[in-house]
Parts: sequence; structure tokens; C-alpha cells
Amino acid sequence: MVLQLQEVIKGIKPVSKDWRKRARERLNNLAIPIGSLGQLLDLAEQLAGIKETLQPSVKKKAIVTMAGDHGVVAEGVSTCPQEVTAQMVYNFVIGGAGINVLAEVAGARVVVVDMGVAQDFADLVAAGKILSHKVDYGTQNMVKGPAMTREQAVQSLEAGIKVASCLVKEGYELLGTGDMGIGNTTPSSAIFAALTGLPVRETTGRGTGISEQVLEHKIEVIERALQVNKPDPADPLDVLSKVGGFEIGGIAGVILGAAYHKVPVVIDGFISTAGALLAQRLAPQSVDYMIAGHCSMEYPHQKMLKELGLTPVLNLKMRLGEGTGAALAMCIIEGAAAVMGKMLTFEECGVARNKSEEYEQ
Amino acid sequence: MVLQLQEVIKGIKPVSKDWRKRARERLNNLAIPIGSLGQLLDLAEQLAGIKETLQPSVKKKAIVTMAGDHGVVAEGVSTCPQEVTAQMVYNFVIGGAGINVLAEVAGARVVVVDMGVAQDFADLVAAGKILSHKVDYGTQNMVKGPAMTREQAVQSLEAGIKVASCLVKEGYELLGTGDMGIGNTTPSSAIFAALTGLPVRETTGRGTGISEQVLEHKIEVIERALQVNKPDPADPLDVLSKVGGFEIGGIAGVILGAAYHKVPVVIDGFISTAGALLAQRLAPQSVDYMIAGHCSMEYPHQKMLKELGLTPVLNLKMRLGEGTGAALAMCIIEGAAAVMGKMLTFEECGVARNKSEEYEQ
Repeated sequence: MVLQLQEVIKGIKPVSKDWRKRARERLNNLAIPIGSLGQLLDLAEQLAGIKETLQPSVKKKAIVTMAGDHGVVAEGVSTCPQEVTAQMVYNFVIGGAGINVLAEVAGARVVVVDMGVAQDFADLVAAGKILSHKVDYGTQNMVKGPAMTREQAVQSLEAGIKVASCLVKEGYELLGTGDMGIGNTTPSSAIFAALTGLPVRETTGRGTGISEQVLEHKIEVIERALQVNKPDPADPLDVLSKVGGFEIGGIAGVILGAAYHKVPVVIDGFISTAGALLAQRLAPQSVDYMIAGHCSMEYPHQKMLKELGLTPVLNLKMRLGEGTGAALAMCIIEGAAAVMGKMLTFEECGVARNKSEEYEQ
Repeated sequence: MVLQLQEVIKGIKPVSKDWRKRARERLNNLAIPIGSLGQLLDLAEQLAGIKETLQPSVKKKAIVTMAGDHGVVAEGVSTCPQEVTAQMVYNFVIGGAGINVLAEVAGARVVVVDMGVAQDFADLVAAGKILSHKVDYGTQNMVKGPAMTREQAVQSLEAGIKVASCLVKEGYELLGTGDMGIGNTTPSSAIFAALTGLPVRETTGRGTGISEQVLEHKIEVIERALQVNKPDPADPLDVLSKVGGFEIGGIAGVILGAAYHKVPVVIDGFISTAGALLAQRLAPQSVDYMIAGHCSMEYPHQKMLKELGLTPVLNLKMRLGEGTGAALAMCIIEGAAAVMGKMLTFEECGVARNKSEEYEQ
């Protein structure tokens, strides 16, 4: 059965307050100074709430790395040649990329999905090395009109939902998002500006490393795209179709799919968070299932996380994408699950309580 | 052969600049925007430099959790009863503590060492559950005189060196430090003040969670201990003996031992960093081998890390000790080793280079 977008949006429920409360009660009774495991305790509570158990398991993990190309690269917004998107897909397949080695450390599978790369991967798809949900061979140039049709926007979201649903069916307990797409900080910045009304200058950074001069040009390109397309901030599908990307829609779909199935999903960096923002505008409750893997060096990322009310797990000055920040954060999230499920309370281990409870956290 | 302190201090060599350079050259050629893995790249370079290879391995890991009691608790500097130190040692043995569950996630062994708990553990030692290097049944109350003799200070350092040496001999490739000892933020703050000359108010925090009022008392107790003992800031052994603790000396010893054997060592929180500061004053080159696992919520910790020139891997608002921050950081450090040893360069994976190198990092 293939899930429709509207069905998923309607089906996303807020995380159980009752389970969160039960979790926090137990965490407050662990044989430690109250609150002394900091952010791990918040994650532990969230995991317990999502999974509705005091022994949440996140052992079986997958990172979904979504790849797509972008017509807007014709405007010279990136210093990387477009063919790098496809070349990196091959690098993912041979296991030599950042996401491969970091996912291995985290014990996570990497699922590479062609959402819309400007090249065919018939060989890789046939060999089962990547999944294909190709919507098109790259988006249209958004300064000349919509990046994609509304139907393609829905298609990209539903592809992500499908990928997430299949992984959940296979028993995956923790999903993470990742991206590959030369030029994709440009649509991400455009989405951020379109949804929030922030000035483009405040939503745009240097991506893979453009000069001051190219950054000015990039800002101008995004401003033009918004003027030409006039995306409706109240209609996330309109925003995605006019200034988005196939992999960004796919990522939003993975997040919605995870939330629908009550599975926590780790958001990677700037591009993934643009997807998360779309997911949140489509289904506000989906935020309950999101964990921000890290804060990227792409400078508007911090603001974007704030917009979602998410606190990043890691702050390692990374800005690679691919899912690398999500993968690394999975180790910490597994730690939080262990804190929830395996640590003993004062009563259970016979340790005397602190004489005072006067510490204000 | 048992290593003497002076031999170890003399034997610690700076990390190879040549290997660091070779490592950075390779890291700069990885198929990613230059510098885009942020702090992971710094860790990768450090690991390659320490281990003198471009394929550093940190698979086999151990956390050394050192326990000791403190005579100064008689002054009412902690709200926790002293017997909690021993009770927590039992909790470590049954596997119910934070360090147990987090070390398991990191794939690290936990080695618990009795450095000077005010209780016998004959049963646990006989059963091989913990190591005993007990110097005494807790330190003396430092407001009334030295916490320990100079011989005991050397003994605690050499015990740590011995533990590290044995682990290295057993093939451990990454060590981490941890502490357990009710009252031990007090000697840690005293050591920090004694070695740096900072006002005690700036080196002292709330430990397990004391009130504003108890904090004022704690500051006054530390000031008195410094006045009574007059530790010589130029003589780290004098500082350790007068206002230190057995487990803090043991931690400093583990760090020195790791550095001597060219093994990276992950420093946990405030108490471990007091040990690291002693190690650095005894052997400045030892800093090359240190990795700061996290920045603790114990407020002077950040300043202490700065004093050592270390950038913490994690910032999770933790303040538990035991080695929990070091254990969690080990996952990230393993990621850095994988980045160094397993990722492919542009040439190796056939990805086109960025057109511009103009990005200023």
C-alpha cells in the first residue's frame, strides 16, 4: 500500500505527553545529581515519548541520502561543477565518502536515493546499489519560473514517505536524513526565506565555499527567483515547487514518513533542515519526531534550527551534508536511549540520595 | 617493569609535526569542500600525528574511572553523603551507572580503580571487578594541612601511569579518564586556583548541586586551604599533595602514561581536567595527546580547557563525571579516525575539484 501525502499529514500525532512524563520521572530518579546528564536526558525523554516505552531501542539505524540536481546552477551560484552530484553518488556506492565512513562508525546503513540527478544510474539501480525515485533530470532554473510542477513536488514528498515506510517495515528504529546536490544551498536558502519572510541576505551562506562576490550574486539570484515565482508562504507545496529541489522534497517526505510511523528522525545540516521546515509547515506535529543532528557552519542554519525549536546535538563546525552530521549524532542518541533504558535509579542500585534538592537547574 | 614518574615525564615527546603535515595534506585532498568536516579534521590530524600513520586505529578503547574520597567533605562542601563514593563503585560493578551504559555504546571497556576510597573493596578486588591502587582511606582535610604527603602524590601518579601502561600493553588504542569521589570538585577548584593564581571564586562551581549559600562556604573553604597550605604554583607535585586528591593524581598519571606510550587520551569533565592541568604542568608536551571530551556545566571548566588550549568535542550540558563525557566523545573520535583512514581523495574517487579555492576557512 502506497501512502498518500494527505493521509500521512493527517496521520501524524503529537508525541505522548504521558510517556514523556513517565520517562522524566524515571530520569529524575537515576542515581546521578538531578539533571546532570544534560541534553542526553532531553533526548532520552523524547525517545521514550516517541516509542512509548521506557526502554527505547535505536539500534537499527539508517541514513537516507537523497541526491538531486538544480537548474539554478546555470546562474553560477556554486563553484562546483554540476557533474559532481553524480560523481558523488558513485563515491557513495564505493564507500569512500564522508557519509559512508561515519555511518559505519554509527552502525547505520546508508540508503542512497536518486531523486533527480541530471544523469542516469541504470547500472547502479539494477545492481541494487541505489534506489531510484527520479522525478526528473534536475529541477528547472528557478529564476526563470518554478523549479518543478506542483505534481512533482507531491511526487518527491511521496517518494520520501515511501522510502521511510519501507525502512520502518524492515525494522529500522532510527532514521537520518542526508543530501547530495550541487547548488542545493540555493533552494534551501530560498525555501527558508519564502517560508519565514526573512531577508534573503539572512538566509543565505557560502555553501561549498564561494567568495564574497559570488555570495552577493547568489543572494541576488535567490531574490530574483522569489520575485519571479512569488511562492505562497502559507502553502509549503507551492514553496517547494517554485524554489525547492527534488532531494529537498524527498528529505521532507522521509521526515513526514518517520513521524507518521512514530520513528525518530535525525536531521542533518542546512539542506536537510530546509526539508524539515517544509515538513513542519505541512504537519506541525512532525517536529516532535525530529532530532537536530548538528549545527552546520552554513551560517543561517542556526537560525533555521531556532525556527523549528530544535537544539542541535553536535557543534563540530561541519558543513558537508550527505547526512554526516546526522550519522555522528546517532552515536549520542544511542547513548541517550541507553541512559533511558539501562541506567539504575537510586532505589535500584542502593545509592544514598543527595541531602539537598535545592539546586535550580 | 614499573615506570617511575621522572622517567615518564622525560620520555613524553611532542607529536610528530611531519605526520601532522602529511595528514593535513591528505585531509585537504579528500573529496569534500576543503575544511568542511570542521573539528573532525583537527581530530583526524591529531590522531595521525600521535599514531604516526595515516590509518590511525582507535577501535580498542578503555575508560579508566578513578575513585577516591576527600577529607575536606568534613567541612560540608557537598550535599552528598561520603558513602556515595563507595556505593557508586558497586554501581559501576553491576553496570547500572552512566559510565557503564555510555561506554557500552562507545564500545569501550570500563576499568574502575580504587585510588583511595574510605572503604575496603576486598571482595571486588579479589573477584577482579576493580583494580586497587588504594593510597589511603581518603585524603586528609586540606583546611587543616596537606591533603596527602608528597610521597602519596607520587604514588597516585605512578599508579595512574601503571594502569595506562598495562592497558596499552593489552592493545588499547584510545584511553579515557573518569572520576568518582564525593567532594572532588573542591580539590579540583583548589588545584585550578593554585596552579593559575585565579581567584577561587572564578575556579569554583556548584558540583553536584549546592545552593548559593553552600557555594559561598565552599569558596571560603578553598581559600582557607590555600592559605593554610601555600601550594607552590611552580611545583605541581606540591599542589597535588597539598590540595589534591588520590583519584585526581591517578587521572594525571593515566594521562602522562598515555602520552608516554603515544596513545591519545580523552579527558572527561572538571575533575579530569584538573588532572590534565597537573599533567600539563609536569610535562607540557602531554597536551599533544589530550582530547577534551566535552565541556561540562561546572562553570569553571570552560576556562580550564582554555588554559590547556583544548577545544571540547561535545557540549551537551553534562556535569556527571565518571568518564561519561569522555565515553560519548569516543564515538566522534572514532569517526575522525575513519575520516583519516578510510575516506577517498578527489583523485582516488574521480570526483571533479571545486573550481575555486578562494574560500577563507
